[in-house]
Order: sequence, then C-alpha cells, then structure tokens
Amino acid sequence: MTATHDIPAGFEKRFETFSEIGSTGDGGVHRMESSAANGEARRQLVAWLREEGFEVRIDGIGNIFGILDLGAGADAPLIMAGSHIDSQPMGGRFDGAYGVIAGLDAALAVRDRLKAAGTTPVANLAVVAFSGEEGARFFTFMGSKVYTGQLTAEETLAQRDADGVLARDAMEAIGFIGTDAAPPFPRAYVELHVECGSYLEDKGVALGVFDRWWGAHKLDVHFIGETSHTGPTPMAKRRDALYAAAQMITGVRGLADAAPVGDLHTSVAKLLVAPNSRNVVPDSALGFVEIRSMKPEVMEENVAKLMPIIETAAAVAGVGHEIVRDDLRRPGRFDEELGQLADAIAVANFGIEPMHIDTLPGHDAIMMMQVTRCLMLTVPSRGGLCHHPDEYSDMGDLKRGAAWLAAILERLVLEPPAPKD
Amino acid sequence: MTATHDIPAGFEKRFETFSEIGSTGDGGVHRMESSAANGEARRQLVAWLREEGFEVRIDGIGNIFGILDLGAGADAPLIMAGSHIDSQPMGGRFDGAYGVIAGLDAALAVRDRLKAAGTTPVANLAVVAFSGEEGARFFTFMGSKVYTGQLTAEETLAQRDADGVLARDAMEAIGFIGTDAAPPFPRAYVELHVECGSYLEDKGVALGVFDRWWGAHKLDVHFIGETSHTGPTPMAKRRDALYAAAQMITGVRGLADAAPVGDLHTSVAKLLVAPNSRNVVPDSALGFVEIRSMKPEVMEENVAKLMPIIETAAAVAGVGHEIVRDDLRRPGRFDEELGQLADAIAVANFGIEPMHIDTLPGHDAIMMMQVTRCLMLTVPSRGGLCHHPDEYSDMGDLKRGAAWLAAILERLVLEPPAPKD
Repeated sequence: MTATHDIPAGFEKRFETFSEIGSTGDGGVHRMESSAANGEARRQLVAWLREEGFEVRIDGIGNIFGILDLGAGADAPLIMAGSHIDSQPMGGRFDGAYGVIAGLDAALAVRDRLKAAGTTPVANLAVVAFSGEEGARFFTFMGSKVYTGQLTAEETLAQRDADGVLARDAMEAIGFIGTDAAPPFPRAYVELHVECGSYLEDKGVALGVFDRWWGAHKLDVHFIGETSHTGPTPMAKRRDALYAAAQMITGVRGLADAAPVGDLHTSVAKLLVAPNSRNVVPDSALGFVEIRSMKPEVMEENVAKLMPIIETAAAVAGVGHEIVRDDLRRPGRFDEELGQLADAIAVANFGIEPMHIDTLPGHDAIMMMQVTRCLMLTVPSRGGLCHHPDEYSDMGDLKRGAAWLAAILERLVLEPPAPKD
Repeated sequence: MTATHDIPAGFEKRFETFSEIGSTGDGGVHRMESSAANGEARRQLVAWLREEGFEVRIDGIGNIFGILDLGAGADAPLIMAGSHIDSQPMGGRFDGAYGVIAGLDAALAVRDRLKAAGTTPVANLAVVAFSGEEGARFFTFMGSKVYTGQLTAEETLAQRDADGVLARDAMEAIGFIGTDAAPPFPRAYVELHVECGSYLEDKGVALGVFDRWWGAHKLDVHFIGETSHTGPTPMAKRRDALYAAAQMITGVRGLADAAPVGDLHTSVAKLLVAPNSRNVVPDSALGFVEIRSMKPEVMEENVAKLMPIIETAAAVAGVGHEIVRDDLRRPGRFDEELGQLADAIAVANFGIEPMHIDTLPGHDAIMMMQVTRCLMLTVPSRGGLCHHPDEYSDMGDLKRGAAWLAAILERLVLEPPAPKD
C-alpha cells in the first residue's frame, strides 16, 4: 500500500448537498435534533449509505450506523468513524456534519484502495451519526450516551423541549426511532471535527489532534417565585424569579472574570422565563449554567463557589430554587497511542506535524471514551467561530482532513488496536 | 326613581360562565389577545349582547361595542361602560372581564328600571370590550389606543408576538377584525375593575374610586451581541447579550430598592433571548423594562438614571443596544366630578363612603381620558393579588360594585355631563 491517499472523490459534492438541508441562506444550517430539516438530513445520509453498499442500522435512540463490510468477516472487529448531524439553531454547516460525511467518503476510499490492492483487512468499518449531540433542543449527547450505556433510550426520549414537545414524539414524527440492534463497540472510534477554536489558524497549522477535553459542569437551576402585577405589587412583596436569575448570571460571569485568563469559561446562555409577560412578575426562571475548565482543581473550586451565588440570588429575590439537573463531565484525555499514529501518518502523507490542542466543546468521542479508544482529528476554523452561520473551514483543509482520516482508518482496519480494558 | 338598585339579575351566572372560557382549572384563565380562548370569550360576549337587544359593532381593531338604545334617539349622546376580556397568560378571571360583564348587566338593569318608570333618558348606553389591554402578547391598550386615535389599526396589527405571529393574522384567525364604524366618543366612560392592590382590603372598605393613575415608562431594550460557542470562545471575545440584560435587570431593580418605599416600582418581567441554546453565547436579548411612579419628578429622575444603566451593561458585555420602544405614560387624574358623583351614590345607596386610591396598573380608562370624562370604580382584591390564578374578589363585593355601576350609569344617561373640551 502507498502511504498517500487521494482525497475521497465524492466528498466535496456531498458536503455541499448536505449543507443545503436546513440551510439558513447565509451559510448556516438550522437542523436541530428531530426537526423536519434534521429528518431530511437523516434520510439523505441513509440514502447515501445504502447507495454505497453500507448496511444501515437505526437503533432505538435514532443513531444511524452504516456498516461497511471490507471482507474481514461477520465477527470481525469494527473501526468506527463519525460525529453528528444535528445543529444548533441557526448554527454552522461544518460542526458535526463534516465528521459524518468525511467518515462516509473516507470509508469508501479505504474500501476501494484495499480492493485495488487485493488486501483483506482484519476489521470492518462503520460510520455513525449520533443523535442529538448539540443539546440545543434536548440534552447533549443523546445518542452517544445511550449507545455507551450511560442512559437508556427510554429516559432520554422522555425529556421535553422548551415548547413541551416530548423527544419521543419529535423523533417518531421524523420516523427515526429504529428497532435495529446497535453494532458492537468498535476497537477504535475516530471523530474528525472542525476545531471550533483558533489555535490552528493562529499557528498556521492545517491538522490538529485533540489531546484533552475540558471538564464541563452543567447545572440547570430553577428559581421559583410568585406571579403578581408589576404595577401595584409593593417591591418588598415581589417574588421575582427573573431577578434571581439575573443575579446568578452576573455572578457566574464573575467567576470567570476573577480567574486567570484561559483557566475558566463560564456561561448562562439559555434562560426560560414564565409567564414572560411584561407586566407579570415572573414566577419561574430556569437558567442553564456551564462552568468549563481543563483543571480539575479549578472546576472543584468554582463549582463550590456556584452554590452560594445561587442561594444568595434566591434569597435576595425572595424566591425558592432547585437544581433540576447537575451534570459533571470531568476533564480527560483521548487515546495517546492513536494520537501518535495520527501524527506519524500526517507527517508521512502530508509532511505536516499536527498541532496537539485541547478541545473545550464536548464531543461524542468523549462519551465513546467510556467504551473504546478514541482519536479526535481536527482542521482549522476561521476565526475560531462556531455555532454561527459564519462558521467556516477551507475546502482544501476539509479535504486534507478527510484524506488523513482515510489513511488512519486504513491503518486501523489492517492493525486494529486491542480492545480497551 | 328610587335611589337603590337591585344587583343585576344575570350577573353572577354570566360571570361564572365566562370564567370557564380558557379556564386554567385552578381559578385562573388563559385568554391572551386573539388566542382561541379569547375568540371563544368574544363570541360568548357578542351572543349575550345580541340576545339582550344590544346593537353589536366590531371595529377594525376588534373592539366589541354593544349599543343599547334607551329611546334617547339615534343622535343622542352615549354613556359607555366596559373594560377588556383578554387576560395575562395563566391570569386571573376578574381582571377586565368583571368590568365588561358588570357593564352589560348594569346596562340591562338601567334599561329595565327606566322602562318600568316610563322614563326616557337623554343618552343611550354602550358597553365595550377593548382589544388587547394586557400587553401580554402584543403591546398594551391595542383597542383603546386605536379607538381614541393614538394609533392606527394598521400599525397596531403589524406587530408580531414572541413566536413571530402577526397580530393581524391572529385576530383574523379568530374572526374579529370587524368592518363596523366604532360609535362616537361617549360623554362619559365608566370602568369598573377589581383593585389589583390591597388598599381596600387593608382598610375594610368595600367600594373604591381610582383618583389618579401612576405614570409608567415602558422601554423595550434590545441588546445585540454575537453568537459563539460557550466552550472554546475566550471570555474576552464573548459578546453576550444575555449578560448585558442580566446587568440591566439587577440595575433596574436597584433603582426601586434605592427609592423611598412606595415611590417607585420597577420591573423587567419579560425577556426574549436568542438563540437561547445552552452552549451558544446569545446574540440577542430583548428586555421589557417598566418604571412606575405617581410622582412626575421621581419618574424623570429614574428614567434619566436608566440610560446609563443600559449603556454600562452593554459596554461591560461588549454588545450593542437599541431602544426598540419608548412609551412614557405620564401620571394623571380621572374626572373629579364623576368621582364625587360616585361618592354620593355610594353613600346614598349603600351607606358606604368609597375610598379614593391610586391605581398603579394601566387601564383603558387612562387612554379614554384623551377623548372623554372617565371614572374608575373598584372593589377589593384579596391580598392584592392580580395576574395570578389566585386573584380573587368576593361575589358580594362584585355584585355591589355592579349595582353601584348601574346606579351611576342611570344618573349619567339622565343627566349626561357636557362634552369634554
């Protein structure tokens, strides 16, 4: 086998076609989990997988798996590549979709090269599009959490979006609650994703490997007050849930502002207020807090500071509070040997020494680390923009990334790593 | 004519029937302007008006007028009573609806008494249900602002609710954009409304007259930031519109907390955040600020303090800001002679000296003061609660209020005040 790989032939056209689905008209896509556009993207993906000879399996949480038989045998181990195809509201077209489309075309490139060389590998390939990674509508990592056994499909589908729509009903409406068994855990999972940060661009490096992921503490905090008229109700009698939330928002921001630059990122980006009428004191405000850090001790310290902020905000506003959800993802590290393999292939095939960086956003690969060895590859994002219609990566970089992925997948099906302990 | 009035016969049953429309099951109603339930309430009202012999007119902004010919002649002046039948989301069943139903039955009581006495009055009666008083879905006083010529129906119907639904489409969907000419301005407008405050209850007085209304400054403030990922985006690069809004909310509250008790009421009760996704820094937050005071100088002073609060919030969060709407309602006073008439009738008929109080919430009568003499009558609200399913007034108090209204309307059709200058 030669060391270099052609850029997978169908990739560019497929990526462009896919970007039209749920297009916002300004470069972005609006394709939230189980929306009509998400359903359309899913059907397109399934159609391509079937056309190209993949065996398609759709499991009970709507994960789409395409299994590509490379002749290794029905019981042979799998190597899996993929990402997700749901988007943020008015999000970017690269986030997630890139890893799935590139995975599909990289798998085909591997099949064609092995066939041409007459080589039978030890493992077969699978491509996956995990359901609901973004957490824009339902909670994050719906599909990969269920696949890896961290949640059941039942509890995941029992949640409701902001309009009260049940996840089960939404996913049923697009016809993607499947009955197929998910494939067994792969020997390795490789996810290719735009950086959503600006380290690569700043250093002028075209390929990157995510070494570590930041920890994230996600707390859904509900303040419970009492409705009354904003006109006559004496200030001292108001039980204003939004006022409590506002204090929490400024307090949470204060944590990041007080930390050394880059140590801590905090946000309250989503807030649901009820009844949300201009002259009714709100009796309900549900704020979605995130605290992110690479440093476990910084996480601990700031999570500890958060509770007094919430309690004080509630006390000052005279409202109750409840932590509705408390989800702590500790910081961690992807598979180091796979990272070294990716480096070696990048140098050999492209003459590029990949930059090793941290990823701050969450990815399905972090969930997959529970069950297998994971590698995350990345290419530059212009200006670090992400979750925005202006999110952009150069097609040359995208194709190089896909070719790199193909070369890595080829090596892995020929020499699969041992199962993870 | 005798001085005492019977409680209008149909009132209690009619009020109970009406309270079922859009009932929340816990005493409240959910009947926002041009919702399905609001349409049903409108149809019920029109049906009653027609059954009882009123001439029904529905104008281009959906105001429902019922004109009751008392034999004064087609060109005779009108005396008008009424209020509104839209509600807050999960609001109370008394607010607005009471004044309309009581107006209807009081008008019938006047007709029957005059007929029995063989007396022909100088004026005829009209009952009105003004559209969209609450401002929960669209802006406040939709109907009375158009009737009094402060806005056109066209510009009023061009606004959209939080879901982007055009007021025109919503009102057309319930079939209430009428083509009838609104009746001419009445010689007097009398609005009976539950207090939505606790002065009457605290003093144990069953009847009240609103002397003055508080001023209200309503500002819709839009902060405009930029979306980015809440994970990787460095804190210094974030343009977080919600963070700006949170600072504004705490700042606006601070104004009221710094003022002498009772001088100033402030609120930000409604906040629209976009994209409102947990891991996307919001690029848009629209906050609805209210500053209310009886004292013009307190209004001036605090409106002046508001702009620096908004500007600082925007600057700290690194976002832009825009005042989308700036609506200043100056404090004012209802007609004093009509207030004296109401006092005299209350003493004569019920042996009660009405309490004269201020109203902090806005009412259609404030709009109507632009075109005619207005009187606002009130009865106790339990605990001052308003805009809440627990909003409650005693049926005995409600009936006494309706009888008082009837006696006042009777006096006014016999001796209408001169047209307002």
